[in-house]
Amino acid sequence: MKVLIIIAHPDKRSLNHAILKSTVDYLKEKDHEVKVTDLYEQQWKAGVDSKDFLDKEDGARLFAMRDSGTAYLSGMLSEDIKAEQAKVDWADIIVFQFPMWWYSMPALMKGWVDRVFTKEFSYTGEKMFNTAPLAGKKAFIVSTVGVPRGSYTTGQLGDINDVFFPIQQGTFALIGFQTLPPIIGYMADSRKSNCFGEITQEIRDRFENIDTVEPLKTSSGYTPSE
Amino acid sequence: MKVLIIIAHPDKRSLNHAILKSTVDYLKEKDHEVKVTDLYEQQWKAGVDSKDFLDKEDGARLFAMRDSGTAYLSGMLSEDIKAEQAKVDWADIIVFQFPMWWYSMPALMKGWVDRVFTKEFSYTGEKMFNTAPLAGKKAFIVSTVGVPRGSYTTGQLGDINDVFFPIQQGTFALIGFQTLPPIIGYMADSRKSNCFGEITQEIRDRFENIDTVEPLKTSSGYTPSE
Repeated sequence: MKVLIIIAHPDKRSLNHAILKSTVDYLKEKDHEVKVTDLYEQQWKAGVDSKDFLDKEDGARLFAMRDSGTAYLSGMLSEDIKAEQAKVDWADIIVFQFPMWWYSMPALMKGWVDRVFTKEFSYTGEKMFNTAPLAGKKAFIVSTVGVPRGSYTTGQLGDINDVFFPIQQGTFALIGFQTLPPIIGYMADSRKSNCFGEITQEIRDRFENIDTVEPLKTSSGYTPSE
Repeated sequence: MKVLIIIAHPDKRSLNHAILKSTVDYLKEKDHEVKVTDLYEQQWKAGVDSKDFLDKEDGARLFAMRDSGTAYLSGMLSEDIKAEQAKVDWADIIVFQFPMWWYSMPALMKGWVDRVFTKEFSYTGEKMFNTAPLAGKKAFIVSTVGVPRGSYTTGQLGDINDVFFPIQQGTFALIGFQTLPPIIGYMADSRKSNCFGEITQEIRDRFENIDTVEPLKTSSGYTPSE
């Protein structure tokens, strides 16, 4: 299989990068193909702006969604976006790996989503959810959190799938990705944590069983209510 | 009252900037004080890294949460972060205004949250939710979306407060902000939309009634389950 891992962590010596290395080593050992997008290393530009669309006339008003689709269709997206779209096209499985910051992904990864999942590439006016251009690829989150296992239930911290609703439903499902359950490393900041051993084992198990893991139930079939 | 508005939109001629101008004009007319953080104009740096913490020794391993608290307490945060924290300290009411991208805020605004809400400034090991250092300030979202009113109910698009769970519960509530209901401009991309008139009226009404608007029920009082 072909796996793309997108990672956003500012320190190469972090737990997240150790987990990444373990995953890459495992995949290579099993003769899978793997590509990594390291957003801090690439100094990823986070903000969508006119410079993303090379066909945009100087001073013309920006309509980010529409402009992104036009530039995609004419091959006029900036080179950094095109390179990432090529990786997404190539991959069967896409892993978003990040430390959870404020119940979400770090800003650089949000900027990857904002800039790479352009109109026409990842959805069209008519094609979303099950009919989206990228439909059928599998995706899942690998994330580290400071709290113990069991913290994400309801209420104050919320169920983990409530926390990830904007990513798993609002992004993955919308562009047709089959969303597999997130893999979480708990107590990531604690020296007493077994997080590294647990999460790397869980990741290996995930790839071993990739064809039989039950996807999350996400909602599809867009029917606006008015 | 003192109002801080943080806005993230790449084009000054956008609907979002027109709404911002209307809000600022209204607040000044009513003799309120207002400050604006325009993240695209300020070319806000989105990614947390070692350069945020001026007391960080070259090459020392980064622990973003811990390091942010240490640098805050010793006055060694980078100048751009300090300037934003001063605005937050000053404000009674904080408005996050943005076009909704992928069920969330644009990357530059996520980078403002990631970098400005440091440990010790916005929460401590012991003080979160109702006891957090900034507790009692009011906050709300002003956002524009492409879909019609009524779309955010359940299922595919989700209730708007499910969409905003990571922001309203995972961020605002966690740092003690009283979260007022979000104000949404619907059908923002349509030329037939009445969005501008509706949302600017709703914003004026919000400030007229700021003391009596019922905050959202967010969950507080952190009790980890193990």
